[in-house]
Amino acid sequence: MSKKSGRALRDALRLPPGEPVVLAGYDAGATPAAPGGKGAGLADSARMGKHLANLQERLWAAGTAGDRRRVLLVLQGMDTSGKGGTVKHVIGHLNPSGCRIQAFKAPTEEERRHDFLWRVRAALPRPGEIGIFDRSHYEDVLIARVRHLARPAEIGSRYGLINDFERSLAEDGVTVVKCFLHLSYEEQRRRLLRRLDRPDKHWKFAPGDIDERARWPAYQEAYELALERCAAPYAPWYLVPADHKWYRNWAISRLLLEHLRELDPQYPRGDFDVAECRERLLKGG
Amino acid sequence: MSKKSGRALRDALRLPPGEPVVLAGYDAGATPAAPGGKGAGLADSARMGKHLANLQERLWAAGTAGDRRRVLLVLQGMDTSGKGGTVKHVIGHLNPSGCRIQAFKAPTEEERRHDFLWRVRAALPRPGEIGIFDRSHYEDVLIARVRHLARPAEIGSRYGLINDFERSLAEDGVTVVKCFLHLSYEEQRRRLLRRLDRPDKHWKFAPGDIDERARWPAYQEAYELALERCAAPYAPWYLVPADHKWYRNWAISRLLLEHLRELDPQYPRGDFDVAECRERLLKGG
Repeated sequence: MSKKSGRALRDALRLPPGEPVVLAGYDAGATPAAPGGKGAGLADSARMGKHLANLQERLWAAGTAGDRRRVLLVLQGMDTSGKGGTVKHVIGHLNPSGCRIQAFKAPTEEERRHDFLWRVRAALPRPGEIGIFDRSHYEDVLIARVRHLARPAEIGSRYGLINDFERSLAEDGVTVVKCFLHLSYEEQRRRLLRRLDRPDKHWKFAPGDIDERARWPAYQEAYELALERCAAPYAPWYLVPADHKWYRNWAISRLLLEHLRELDPQYPRGDFDVAECRERLLKGG
Repeated sequence: MSKKSGRALRDALRLPPGEPVVLAGYDAGATPAAPGGKGAGLADSARMGKHLANLQERLWAAGTAGDRRRVLLVLQGMDTSGKGGTVKHVIGHLNPSGCRIQAFKAPTEEERRHDFLWRVRAALPRPGEIGIFDRSHYEDVLIARVRHLARPAEIGSRYGLINDFERSLAEDGVTVVKCFLHLSYEEQRRRLLRRLDRPDKHWKFAPGDIDERARWPAYQEAYELALERCAAPYAPWYLVPADHKWYRNWAISRLLLEHLRELDPQYPRGDFDVAECRERLLKGG
């Protein structure tokens, strides 16, 4: 595969650092760089599963021999945009042993006693692992901004703190892959209605979800600010159109694959005498 | 499915509490209660994947509504017996979000400053989760006994402490499923030789593995003691013949399935007015 095609989707979905983001300008139903329609997307996702699992094993194996590199996938998006579904369908291809998954909810009392990055640091992937954040430190400039959970000046200072934090991660060998699952207002309505239609989905629903939906414009604005201020070359934001679940899963699988291929982790070489070990094994009873 | 067949494998593999265990009496190449040979086993495992994932989702959903029940799968066995492979192939069927996996290595300095159950308590599944221990607190009566890592009296006291601990787990809603992956000495030789044959498997091998293998009889004895003293009605030990990988994966999938079916977790009912919520969603812009 040529170097160019090896980063084709990254180039298609990456938000340019420092430029204003206008979410209304992006079609949430688009399928940029897809291999075709739904059928082709599902087939390609299934094919990628094996490659992802193989690269993950190599990353893990390299980690056992001192390679400190790892991947952190950050998933952000409005309710029903598919953060949980991504974990199930994309991360489900991987060996669960090598994945460190953390879903961030409203901070606990203990978490609130620390700075906002404290709980995030504790959940970072270790060398060789693939970490997945279902929501993240970005909630502290999203819901915190929309619901006025902190003073404006404090929220304003967090963008810079996030950038410093993510730069330190990159310098420590963490490949940070931030995905904004871009959902349309209409598709969210359809998905919430579907949850109401199915009693086995009621546990995923709360009337408060409708209250949050009423704050849609404020959330879009908060996302635009976060995507603009925290899209850095060392930790880019990818805008993933999320109205089509098959595309969302395909795109995030593909982004992971492109990053892992670039990392190109290697199985470590054994530093032992293979012939001697074989001999000992064959002799030993 | 009748109640009887719903626990058929458990009945076949469970070690009777309090009875002496003689591992030499169990064929590691056996396939008790299997649905046929390798082909039928693989097909049945694939079929079970969907049922496991569905029951896991119900367990998780129930957990969001206050059901404190959860499952803890404990995997023990000699090197190459397939603890890691079980996580990959059996737990790989599940939604990784609901799994809490912990591999226990030699204790760190900090872990050694606490009692031997401290690190285990910290890694327990939360309500609604399926926890998986790749090795566990049993190492403290296995390698600790074989390698004399603690005084005999201290090791002797640990069996009772483990039983008390596991009883407290059961009383707190944890279904403890302990699997001993029973491997033969010959099959371990074959698997270690195969690791030597393949450079991409060398990272899984260390010459020290051969030293441990030389202590095989001492390990078997330590296992026999642990299996006898800690097979309790509230936390049984299952002896899983592990020379056939397909059988090991089938059997552990099936054990999980039987336990989850017995738990029979239910989707919680929404405590909101569905019609009113639908109305609000349809009206809201």
